[in-house]
Amino acid sequence: MTESSSARGQSGSSSLNPTRSERAARMALSCVVDGGDPLVGDAVEGLGAQSTWVKLTEGAFGDPLVRRSTSVEIDRLERWALKSCVRFVIPGDEEWPEPIGDLRFAQAVQRRGGVPFGLWLRGPLHLARSMERSVAIVGSRASTSYGNNVATDLGADLAEQGVAVVSGGAFGIDAAAHRGALAVGGLTVCVLACGVDVPYPRGNATLFDWLAQDQLLVSELPPGATPTRVRFLARNRLIAALSQGTVVVEAALRSGARNTASWALECQRQLMAVPGPVHSAMSAAPHLMIRNGQAALVSTAAEVLELISPMGQNTVAMPRGAERPTDVLDAARLAVFEAVSAHRRSSVGNIALKAGVSVPVCLSELAALEGQRMVEGDERGWRLHQSQQRGLF
Amino acid sequence: MTESSSARGQSGSSSLNPTRSERAARMALSCVVDGGDPLVGDAVEGLGAQSTWVKLTEGAFGDPLVRRSTSVEIDRLERWALKSCVRFVIPGDEEWPEPIGDLRFAQAVQRRGGVPFGLWLRGPLHLARSMERSVAIVGSRASTSYGNNVATDLGADLAEQGVAVVSGGAFGIDAAAHRGALAVGGLTVCVLACGVDVPYPRGNATLFDWLAQDQLLVSELPPGATPTRVRFLARNRLIAALSQGTVVVEAALRSGARNTASWALECQRQLMAVPGPVHSAMSAAPHLMIRNGQAALVSTAAEVLELISPMGQNTVAMPRGAERPTDVLDAARLAVFEAVSAHRRSSVGNIALKAGVSVPVCLSELAALEGQRMVEGDERGWRLHQSQQRGLF
Repeated sequence: MTESSSARGQSGSSSLNPTRSERAARMALSCVVDGGDPLVGDAVEGLGAQSTWVKLTEGAFGDPLVRRSTSVEIDRLERWALKSCVRFVIPGDEEWPEPIGDLRFAQAVQRRGGVPFGLWLRGPLHLARSMERSVAIVGSRASTSYGNNVATDLGADLAEQGVAVVSGGAFGIDAAAHRGALAVGGLTVCVLACGVDVPYPRGNATLFDWLAQDQLLVSELPPGATPTRVRFLARNRLIAALSQGTVVVEAALRSGARNTASWALECQRQLMAVPGPVHSAMSAAPHLMIRNGQAALVSTAAEVLELISPMGQNTVAMPRGAERPTDVLDAARLAVFEAVSAHRRSSVGNIALKAGVSVPVCLSELAALEGQRMVEGDERGWRLHQSQQRGLF
Repeated sequence: MTESSSARGQSGSSSLNPTRSERAARMALSCVVDGGDPLVGDAVEGLGAQSTWVKLTEGAFGDPLVRRSTSVEIDRLERWALKSCVRFVIPGDEEWPEPIGDLRFAQAVQRRGGVPFGLWLRGPLHLARSMERSVAIVGSRASTSYGNNVATDLGADLAEQGVAVVSGGAFGIDAAAHRGALAVGGLTVCVLACGVDVPYPRGNATLFDWLAQDQLLVSELPPGATPTRVRFLARNRLIAALSQGTVVVEAALRSGARNTASWALECQRQLMAVPGPVHSAMSAAPHLMIRNGQAALVSTAAEVLELISPMGQNTVAMPRGAERPTDVLDAARLAVFEAVSAHRRSSVGNIALKAGVSVPVCLSELAALEGQRMVEGDERGWRLHQSQQRGLF
């Protein structure tokens, strides 16, 4: 592959689309270089993918990558992808999610970072359009039933509001979030740390089948790639950058979800966390992030929606308790009402003294309160109406 | 009582102490005017208690207060107090808690506010000294067992650290907090919305007996006074102002604890809230206050202590998970480690290719990893050491 090939490889692409060999170069890079490699990533940004590929094959990034590059067969990979309904999108494609470009400016976390060379996609959803309203829900594999319930509820409620639920397909919170969105027929996107054809973890194979059939599987790794710890860390940046915001439902202090959270902050995305019982180790990371001011506390999908929406849209009404009859009383009437005993009947004189009002005022307020069925009076005195027998706080 | 009496009523008080008739005037005001009355409070601030009392008896604050004032018998009250081991402290007394003066500058909440005329005390604790390190723990009467457990734990853990636990003696969170402090032999102070001799709620009568015997009951209301809703609201400001900070453990959106929280903010005290399950109505108010940025999220007594301590004291170490063996590996060794399969044995060539390092580097890293018992190799190839069979995240 040479730079001159960019002029030739135009077949089958519109004038707006990247050239075929730009695509081939990025595909080849995705096969040889692990996602988030800062050295090769910088070269692609500076020189373009084709020149970077040439330099790589010439040894600019070390012998191991040269050796790897010799095993790449782009034509065979493209045929396989076509047959397997897998597509490879790159910057400039209509389906390319522009916001992921923010990774260019994000400080590398654990020396991984940068914009992916391209994204392998499997499933019918349109990636860029799905991500226009999207929230990542992430958390621990070793989640509690509380966390799973919250993740499923959030996934379902957000999906019902037309928000795509992004997660990583892992056991626990990830799977619960995907399932919540699926349960209401909403959109959900799974970003993998392996090839889009690799069911990892195997226990979620059925889930991946559903997602491939009706939703979308996303990866920067080529088909067949297996997950490694480094790839999980690199994958987390894609979850954070693709979504408008990230919600951490449950996570231990040491967990991949915290890594995703760091990426959300690096990409200037809204970071949110769900609280839980203080004794639960699985709520330790959400509580820490809220306490530190890194994450906003969220309890409901409505609160999430408010935070990812433009200012003034989807605002949550300030919640307050139910109205009480006493709310609408003015000061004098409230004082009289408060001076009336629940059970023991009192004279007007005693009530006036206790309320700190004159007897005539007291009488007229009592009459008004009687009309509102808040007090009742007879010749023995006044007491609260039976409907008003209430506790003090 | 006249202004000239201030000169006469010196018997039994040191020169630093307020005069006897200043004390008598404040005592009389506490019997006639409900705590937090802004009009009479302002008059006391401006004119002093004795002049205010004279004006009150002359009708400056309305006929009802004049009528009430005629029933006040200070000498009888003082004799009763002496007999009942109840004392009345006023500004200038050694036991007067100076920080409560911050109520002078606090914006009145629900038109109640101001510094109390004096405080009725029952119990052996020294009020001012106890409040030097003090935290209010408040919350719902209708608390859950989760909330009660947290309140008891916080009360006990703070008391063990020498912090006095302030609360309101109500069912639920209040009682749980007092009991936590009592359980470890710590200090706890109960601020009532009735006289210090009135056991309200009656179900906590035994608790009040303990508190009167070993701890401290506090009220701005005279002996015998019964609670009203207005008095609860006025009482809440004392809880907030006496303490260095207020922790809301569980509270519905509509609750007295939120009123106490408002007072804590008005008095520039640290407001804290304990998170809980998002489905629990009793955690709705804490979550709202955290979400709004009014309250800091706290999970433990150590976190509370950090927030009420001077900067740099009692700081909580940034919590993090347990160290893993891989934490200390450099990039090349980690890459090699990650490229080794858990069960299937691989050749050095394959591992080098996967890790992106040269074969000599791979061999030396494998040898080092073998020394750390992280991988094991034989003539069939390399795999993870049995102690390292781990899941990916």
